[in-house]
Amino acid sequence: METKEKQIPSQTGGSFLINKIPESIFIESDFSEEQNMMVASAKEFVEQEVLPLADELEKKKDLSQTIDLLHKAGDLGLLGLGVSENYGGIEVSFNTTLRVIEEMAKTTEFSPAIGVQTSIGIAPILLYGNEKQKAQYIPDMISGKSKGCYCLTEPDAGSDANSGKTKAIYNESEKAYYLTGQKMWITNAGIADVFTVFAKIEDDQNLSAFIVEKGYAGLTLGEEEDKMGIRASSTRQVFLNDVKVPEENLLGKRGDGFKIALNVLSTGRIKLGIGGLGVSKKAIDYAVGYAKDRKQFGQSISSFGAIQQKLAKMVVKTYALQAAAYRTGELIDQKEEEYLKSGMSLDEAKPKAVTAYGIECAIIKVFGTESQDFTVDEGLQIYGGMGFSEEAPMARLYRDSRISRIFEGTNEINRMLIVDILLKKAMNGELDLMNAATAVQKELTSIPDFSANKNEDTLEQGTQVLENLKKITLIIAGSAAQKLMMKLKEEQEILMNVADMLIQIYMLESVLVKTKRIKDTLGEGASATQVDICQLFMMEAVKSIKNSAEEALWSFSEGDELKMMNMALKRFTKMEAFNVKDTRRRVAQKLIEDGKYKF
Amino acid sequence: METKEKQIPSQTGGSFLINKIPESIFIESDFSEEQNMMVASAKEFVEQEVLPLADELEKKKDLSQTIDLLHKAGDLGLLGLGVSENYGGIEVSFNTTLRVIEEMAKTTEFSPAIGVQTSIGIAPILLYGNEKQKAQYIPDMISGKSKGCYCLTEPDAGSDANSGKTKAIYNESEKAYYLTGQKMWITNAGIADVFTVFAKIEDDQNLSAFIVEKGYAGLTLGEEEDKMGIRASSTRQVFLNDVKVPEENLLGKRGDGFKIALNVLSTGRIKLGIGGLGVSKKAIDYAVGYAKDRKQFGQSISSFGAIQQKLAKMVVKTYALQAAAYRTGELIDQKEEEYLKSGMSLDEAKPKAVTAYGIECAIIKVFGTESQDFTVDEGLQIYGGMGFSEEAPMARLYRDSRISRIFEGTNEINRMLIVDILLKKAMNGELDLMNAATAVQKELTSIPDFSANKNEDTLEQGTQVLENLKKITLIIAGSAAQKLMMKLKEEQEILMNVADMLIQIYMLESVLVKTKRIKDTLGEGASATQVDICQLFMMEAVKSIKNSAEEALWSFSEGDELKMMNMALKRFTKMEAFNVKDTRRRVAQKLIEDGKYKF
Repeated sequence: METKEKQIPSQTGGSFLINKIPESIFIESDFSEEQNMMVASAKEFVEQEVLPLADELEKKKDLSQTIDLLHKAGDLGLLGLGVSENYGGIEVSFNTTLRVIEEMAKTTEFSPAIGVQTSIGIAPILLYGNEKQKAQYIPDMISGKSKGCYCLTEPDAGSDANSGKTKAIYNESEKAYYLTGQKMWITNAGIADVFTVFAKIEDDQNLSAFIVEKGYAGLTLGEEEDKMGIRASSTRQVFLNDVKVPEENLLGKRGDGFKIALNVLSTGRIKLGIGGLGVSKKAIDYAVGYAKDRKQFGQSISSFGAIQQKLAKMVVKTYALQAAAYRTGELIDQKEEEYLKSGMSLDEAKPKAVTAYGIECAIIKVFGTESQDFTVDEGLQIYGGMGFSEEAPMARLYRDSRISRIFEGTNEINRMLIVDILLKKAMNGELDLMNAATAVQKELTSIPDFSANKNEDTLEQGTQVLENLKKITLIIAGSAAQKLMMKLKEEQEILMNVADMLIQIYMLESVLVKTKRIKDTLGEGASATQVDICQLFMMEAVKSIKNSAEEALWSFSEGDELKMMNMALKRFTKMEAFNVKDTRRRVAQKLIEDGKYKF
Repeated sequence: METKEKQIPSQTGGSFLINKIPESIFIESDFSEEQNMMVASAKEFVEQEVLPLADELEKKKDLSQTIDLLHKAGDLGLLGLGVSENYGGIEVSFNTTLRVIEEMAKTTEFSPAIGVQTSIGIAPILLYGNEKQKAQYIPDMISGKSKGCYCLTEPDAGSDANSGKTKAIYNESEKAYYLTGQKMWITNAGIADVFTVFAKIEDDQNLSAFIVEKGYAGLTLGEEEDKMGIRASSTRQVFLNDVKVPEENLLGKRGDGFKIALNVLSTGRIKLGIGGLGVSKKAIDYAVGYAKDRKQFGQSISSFGAIQQKLAKMVVKTYALQAAAYRTGELIDQKEEEYLKSGMSLDEAKPKAVTAYGIECAIIKVFGTESQDFTVDEGLQIYGGMGFSEEAPMARLYRDSRISRIFEGTNEINRMLIVDILLKKAMNGELDLMNAATAVQKELTSIPDFSANKNEDTLEQGTQVLENLKKITLIIAGSAAQKLMMKLKEEQEILMNVADMLIQIYMLESVLVKTKRIKDTLGEGASATQVDICQLFMMEAVKSIKNSAEEALWSFSEGDELKMMNMALKRFTKMEAFNVKDTRRRVAQKLIEDGKYKF
């Protein structure tokens, strides 16, 4: 590995695959007093204003309470986090914003309303609007006076957003565009004052984006959709019938629309992922509470191995999600800092910094939403029959959570995006994947150092395991790219295998480094549970990567090459056996003792 | 293996683990014309009477339509399948009944109403009632005139059913019991005329069962539960406040209640499992239809690898479920035949035959309901945003399906039950597990025959893989039992690992033998897709068993023993590599071509 040293690229999106394991990542205890106060105020808003209304919000059809709550959130400054003070925002770090969203997400029936307002509602104008547009719209959206929505999806243009049929025809004399088309699944449509509408001007190849106001003639809405969940947020169709839009309402330049859409979605993605963290913690807290209270066979069901195993699995995934999410938030904050120093404005630097970590944002989205659904599902199962009742909290969490794997690009689209961005970065030289892959290939032909495999210390062993997992991922991604070349795009299954490997590596690295920091700070005894969690996650990651790697290998390799690759796979996916059952029990017992998620 | 030949026990519940792979199992094409006609009439009822009302049924609160539909089903003879003609039933095989239930299950919102009526509603009286009781209640329940429900669960007695607090006090002079207690989650309570109530007489250790009629003074109901799904079926609490029940309403003998409850539940379990088959087929048919219609990026989304992979996974699990379910149905029918020949009455022989295959019933329940939730979840994901809308079919399937992993004993309880019954059978000599395990242990010390590993024919390879998987399961179950002895009961995690291995073995054997039969009948070309499915399921089973085995081993073994066991694990979980991606694509493409599940 020594020869690689010089070639280590600077920290950038995707570089985790080829960089050495970092010494440190940002973890929860790094949040400042001030940042924690902001989070506390969000928490208070959620607990005192929103959750007491949750049942009403879920059942009510008129959304007036949803609007009231948005106003209250605006009064508290919660709608303008991270936006510059010029427009009434509060200039907090991206990571602080993420933590606020984590709290907000616990109001699952309502959170999409505030989520859309603060991300894809405001972002297009903030990111691509000119000074006049920003001054006109942003302050009112931050105060909650004005509500925003994002009109991209169409009946025939979902994942394939750029194929939208909505048209904008320019009228020279009126200096205005006339928009006609149909938008679908528009969150907040029913309460929105400002609609960011994506449409193609004349016969353009690419989308453009327009600001459309509620009052414009020809803009109408469909009925409220009857959705399985998130019932305190509005979802309607938006119809545009020759809607006259002044030319000064064009966002950015003609043809910028797709770029705007994609950049805005990166932010939306990591926010959905961290939302999964909030929901997971909520599900864990409810589940452990119920398991402690519920008695069967003469004892609390939390004393049973079958229940403890579930609780431990829920904790392990949530811990990983938290480690990776805060880590990514900080990386984005650092990148923003870099951009600010180079002279960019805050409102420009922030989204650009998010986009720089588009891979990590998609990773957090996929892992976070799947981890969320897993945790909610197991939580429901712990509740038994009561889990199926709408009187208990799990049924609603189950219904509300299910949208997140579809929102902001299905998880399948996001998986392919992860690999797509990575390969593009490799092509344009931003990430030196080729050299890294070649180095590992070379190592393959050398004789493995078996002595190094045995390691009693879990975290030291983890370092070795992770380094090996990076190697096998590089080998597989490298040879898939080499072998399939331009055909790779059509091999979605293999792209998804590679994406899954990348996801696990980023997660495991985050878990490992976080746990090391905790152990360094608290000492061996006080960090024992975290080390247990780390070991359990390591096992999950190794198994998952082994599985993805094997599926990919079997599908694009054969004969002697496959034999050699299989040997590499075995060599690079080894880990020491440990008592899985007892380790899970220790994690669960700590959770039961704490009574809530505190890792 | 030759020495084992003589010791092969006869076909009985659990014997699949130690028996040779059977030459044949019952498959779909074995159903007779007459049986198929019965199924067709159920299908017609579902499609013409129930499904057109599905939306109304889901939304309506008064359940009057649910009652009407039960009457109609009664008129068609669908409520008395498998019951002797003496009581107005139709004497069809158990397998026919299962197939009818498979069709009924497609009406997810309504199916619990008919499911309870025909299984746990009628069964306790049919199984344990005396002639007078049967004559009095069964014919009316079969005609639909009278509705039944099953009152076992209490607020503090769910999985631990025997701990119920409902009391029966005998009044000598009135020749009657006075019942007091509270029952919970009682399906059909709101429409029921006949309540089978489990209660403890005086200070008995064990439950007794009573027939309680709707009109009895002191019997009242709670409000309809607000459930996440199955909204066309009634679920309420049942309160008993000094309800006078004539002593002739005691079912069976005093203290028989727990036995009655358990026996009845075996039937309920396999029926829930096969219900999962119906729902899975429905989800697949909708998903493939939608995927074909939906266009993105200029083509039908069914052409994308990511979608095809999902469709193939759905098909593979469903195929396995179907193979194992019909196989089990036939085994139960054969056992019934055996009992009938020995002089038992039909109504006695049938439930006893089901109980004889209690292990397999629990296996079908666990695999079937988990396969169902997997398939519905992937189906929803294929629908994208539309999947979350209550206007499309997937949201309701998602909500309705979730109860099945909880009903009739959670899947965790069922997993432990599988191992529990198996060990009891080993103890009482019904299954010679010990000899089988010893034989494998011996083989372990011999030098493996590596030459035999390579096999080009998928099904022949499958035979070898399955035989090996049985061996590793015997080794692990055997040494866990030996090592943990009486402590095993507390090691729920290991019990569940073993259960998961047993489940996969039963499934794989069913898939393998079914596929062999299809290949023998149709020839190589026409059976190619089934062979593909078999290979894919084999991979799933091998991975799953490897995973469960490793988790168990790591948790109860260490040092040299663990090393030896790990070698055995490697040796017995080998399979040949194959192109997973292409194989899945072929399966999906056949499904797309057929337009619906036809394997």
